[in-house]
Amino acid sequence: MRGAPARGRNGRVWDNRPLMSQDAPPDTPTPEAPPDPLEQVIDLLQDEDVSGATALLEEMRPAEAATVLEQLSDAALGRVVPAMDAETLSSAIEYASPITRSEIVRHLTADALTEAMEAIPDDLAADVMGDLDDASAAALMESLSDERREELEHLLPYGPETAGGLMTGQVLTVAPTLTAGEAITQLRESDADASKPFYLYVTDADRQLRGVVNVRALITASPSTPVLDLMASDVISVEAQTDQEDAARILQRHNLLALPVVDPHGHLLGTITVDDLIDVIEEEATEDFYRLALVHEDENLRGVWASVRNRLPWLSVNTVTALSAAAVVAAFEGTLERVAILAAFLPVIGGQGGNAGIQTLTVVVRSLALGRITIRDTREVLWHELRVGLLLGLAVGLMVTLVAWGWRGNPWLGLVILIALWVNITVGAIAGVAIPMALQRLKQDPALSGGIWLMAATDLSGFFAFLGTATFLISRLE
Amino acid sequence: MRGAPARGRNGRVWDNRPLMSQDAPPDTPTPEAPPDPLEQVIDLLQDEDVSGATALLEEMRPAEAATVLEQLSDAALGRVVPAMDAETLSSAIEYASPITRSEIVRHLTADALTEAMEAIPDDLAADVMGDLDDASAAALMESLSDERREELEHLLPYGPETAGGLMTGQVLTVAPTLTAGEAITQLRESDADASKPFYLYVTDADRQLRGVVNVRALITASPSTPVLDLMASDVISVEAQTDQEDAARILQRHNLLALPVVDPHGHLLGTITVDDLIDVIEEEATEDFYRLALVHEDENLRGVWASVRNRLPWLSVNTVTALSAAAVVAAFEGTLERVAILAAFLPVIGGQGGNAGIQTLTVVVRSLALGRITIRDTREVLWHELRVGLLLGLAVGLMVTLVAWGWRGNPWLGLVILIALWVNITVGAIAGVAIPMALQRLKQDPALSGGIWLMAATDLSGFFAFLGTATFLISRLE
Repeated sequence: MRGAPARGRNGRVWDNRPLMSQDAPPDTPTPEAPPDPLEQVIDLLQDEDVSGATALLEEMRPAEAATVLEQLSDAALGRVVPAMDAETLSSAIEYASPITRSEIVRHLTADALTEAMEAIPDDLAADVMGDLDDASAAALMESLSDERREELEHLLPYGPETAGGLMTGQVLTVAPTLTAGEAITQLRESDADASKPFYLYVTDADRQLRGVVNVRALITASPSTPVLDLMASDVISVEAQTDQEDAARILQRHNLLALPVVDPHGHLLGTITVDDLIDVIEEEATEDFYRLALVHEDENLRGVWASVRNRLPWLSVNTVTALSAAAVVAAFEGTLERVAILAAFLPVIGGQGGNAGIQTLTVVVRSLALGRITIRDTREVLWHELRVGLLLGLAVGLMVTLVAWGWRGNPWLGLVILIALWVNITVGAIAGVAIPMALQRLKQDPALSGGIWLMAATDLSGFFAFLGTATFLISRLE
Repeated sequence: MRGAPARGRNGRVWDNRPLMSQDAPPDTPTPEAPPDPLEQVIDLLQDEDVSGATALLEEMRPAEAATVLEQLSDAALGRVVPAMDAETLSSAIEYASPITRSEIVRHLTADALTEAMEAIPDDLAADVMGDLDDASAAALMESLSDERREELEHLLPYGPETAGGLMTGQVLTVAPTLTAGEAITQLRESDADASKPFYLYVTDADRQLRGVVNVRALITASPSTPVLDLMASDVISVEAQTDQEDAARILQRHNLLALPVVDPHGHLLGTITVDDLIDVIEEEATEDFYRLALVHEDENLRGVWASVRNRLPWLSVNTVTALSAAAVVAAFEGTLERVAILAAFLPVIGGQGGNAGIQTLTVVVRSLALGRITIRDTREVLWHELRVGLLLGLAVGLMVTLVAWGWRGNPWLGLVILIALWVNITVGAIAGVAIPMALQRLKQDPALSGGIWLMAATDLSGFFAFLGTATFLISRLE
């Protein structure tokens, strides 16, 4: 866990009113709404008071300063960042979003960047390194201390979406031969990040992971107790190549604060802390969310062209599948010429089949992501959704059928619609299970583009059933 | 944080191979695939070996035992649960999903339940109490020790989706007058959950929250240092009424392990630990996810009728709006009789307008949920999406137009389609911003039912533009 709960900077004592004070206590006067820190910073910059703006940022909590920086324009960042003190800069890099982080780094001189790289946690330094082009990264690496360079060389080989890519190598370890008292002395003398004190890992001389000790147990025990007696030996760990999402699930399932990362031989490489894995959980949810809606996960509502580039490709693919459904309709042009009212029900059939299928697809994709189901459950889920689809298709079909019958006074029209909706809502339910399960089996993201193929399946089957039946019964419909 | 990293039960030492071992080390033989614990338990139960099954569960890690219990049938649970020992039972209640938790509780005798209620953390005991009907809850309350009853009475008044509803009252506090050495002695003697040792809260005699001390700082300091000198006074806290999602955002933004909960006067009531807030983050993401797809958030792929009941209402509302779009189409029946091919493009227009709108809606809903935008950004986001919508509408419109022109050899047909798609994709972009922003302003969930109104808007505007223009240009289309 990076970041202590509170950092009193410059000796300033913060008021500790709750952040989400919703009801002012009845016997105290309602306080004035506090001035918006972002506006204050912008105002100071407009008055050319850069040192006033940085002073304000230095007084804020790190996360609040980061929030302000995230909302400043790049030009404003370019004025503020070079004037910030080293401590504020480090915590801004630590708390800001990846995009703002790389903007901050761009505005730093080489010397200031080197200084910041020495101060921030090693996993974050590796992330900063990953943001740079090869030449800049090599030059920055050259400028670092031997110690920091070694730490980074330890982390950089791992892919960004793996456990290794998230871990810090700055871990507190103790030898199994120590006593509790000796371990506490070592803890006191170590310079590892003071905000990460909750687990001590017990490792052999060759860093083989042997167990884990809770710091609380260490304090409570008599100083002469061997660490071996305090440690739990069934350590839950992951390998460095483990996907970050799997690592997050394991941490969450076991209610842990940190997860040790080991190599295939069980040697401790580092740990991932819960704050980094919370971000992974949220990122992965957003990614699935966006992919189901055919939006690229980098979409951030900044830059019109970027949004168009993100969204147009999938819309284009979708246009092609929609046009193939249009070709099915066009094949029945003669039927439509004779019974034009059929056209009014085409969008109802396409839409309701798609909606029912997307319901299934969403539940299956999310349940897969949360580990509630796996591909081994395909048959069971398919059977569940098939029955749900048949019932929903019948219900929705009857609803539209009765409206159509009442409206046009022709029960045969109702029958044609009922058949079409029953077919394509059932097809949608099956496709909503089959598509993500097949993607999962092919080791693809089950959320990826499933909606397109699902809607193609429901459109094609629905229109074919609808117009095919209508053609067959054409004498009843005219 | 509930749950120590590892609980060696019965003195059994667990192998500490990584859980996600993907590449076996090249120089060791590949181990046999471990037997599936669920199947083992089911096999033992089929052999009427209940004590064997419970022995197996008792040997597992708590989270793994909970996973097995979650997948057992209710009948199997009814056989296993009464035979489990108190410790395994408590951790099963602690790690199981809320549904399985209440199933476990249902299978306990009154005495066993009372015993478990004394052993589990207070916040979890309050959750169990909340699962019961009023009479059972009152009877259970009567059976508890005075201490536990008092603890629960402290927690029960808060709503389940508030910070108060998630907090534990079992907090480690120290007086500001103590020294570090005295605080450590107090920590040693306290019986609070040993797995939650990372922050010590400093409170006055009347429990006014004054500051927070990191346990590591306590160990590192000389024993005579006053706690006052070690504590940070700008504690980040929330009020008990704060929505759980807001509390989760604050914890995440500040990279905290726990969040103190206070009353409006700043008195410490309890703390929420990061593991509970991870579950909130995930729950809220699932809820938004499902609501956008018109699925109820309780959907769990169990029970066909439950799924139908969850999904049919929204599909029915959607059917009504789809039928109103059908009425618009029917109003142009004369046009469709004369140019039947227009019907083939109705689903393309409806579908692509809806898809583009859903892209916008998804990005806006998720960005609101993540706090990346607020209703104050409505104008800016609307302006962004309006331009994106105009560009996407033009691009998709031109694509379909060229296909239609090439296919039917009539540029006027292309023009009619271009106008319709341009209109309704732009309408979709605007509605995709306006609907969630309006819901947010009305203090409703922005994810709720937005898709229905959005698709109604794109269908109606698209069909009206399409068939209206076609009617106007009918002589060019025949």
